[in-house]
Amino acid sequence: MAYKKHLGCPFTYALEIFGDKWSLLVLRDLIIFNKRTYKEFAAAGEGIATNILADRLNNLEKDGMITKKRDPENRRSYIYSPTRKSLDLFPMFYEMIRWSAKYDTKTSVPNKWVRTPKSTMQKIQKEIIERFACDLK
Amino acid sequence: MAYKKHLGCPFTYALEIFGDKWSLLVLRDLIIFNKRTYKEFAAAGEGIATNILADRLNNLEKDGMITKKRDPENRRSYIYSPTRKSLDLFPMFYEMIRWSAKYDTKTSVPNKWVRTPKSTMQKIQKEIIERFACDLK
Repeated sequence: MAYKKHLGCPFTYALEIFGDKWSLLVLRDLIIFNKRTYKEFAAAGEGIATNILADRLNNLEKDGMITKKRDPENRRSYIYSPTRKSLDLFPMFYEMIRWSAKYDTKTSVPNKWVRTPKSTMQKIQKEIIERFACDLK
Repeated sequence: MAYKKHLGCPFTYALEIFGDKWSLLVLRDLIIFNKRTYKEFAAAGEGIATNILADRLNNLEKDGMITKKRDPENRRSYIYSPTRKSLDLFPMFYEMIRWSAKYDTKTSVPNKWVRTPKSTMQKIQKEIIERFACDLK
């Protein structure tokens, strides 16, 4: 489904980077669920194929959303970390979660998340960013 | 690219509704650019194919994101309107726009949008919602 990229449009910029389902789910797992390895991403409930996962991780790295380094405990594996650029998606994720929680009758989002005032959301974001402080670039 | 829907997950709920590029671009045109007719959506810069546009409009209607009614001035056309459910995406759109503006070196997002405090963002959202007050359901 090719489409003409609209230079400067904030929607097409975002879509180029995480506009396919799998990229967004990988970012969710990375930022919200704190997953770090290929194995952990592959185990996500949505059943991502291994070749698609490898492709999306590569693209996210190229786009400056993640960094990877060798796992010191297993030199054949990598540890993936979010960059500041991907952590900055948190406010968007937060609003998307609130929207889904409002309209999905089967939502699993805890009420306290939805009712959270903005100031608490900012606190959560700060904690997430501090958690990765050493990886930020 | 089928994936298993994760019941209750706010990410997969959102992805089911606007997780393909075209649906999101139609919602952008509807909510941000105030487009209302098939012809207007088709004229968007990204070059959407007419069969894809028709399909996405149908899906968005089924998902409660838009309503359509006959154009009183041209009975062969429809006027599309956003519902409250789609207008409630505005905070997410706003955060996505700010994120893109921060990282896209070619961004066309005006500085005043990016520097806008939360209170102004809420005012913009209120204005958008009031603009459609008669169509809200």
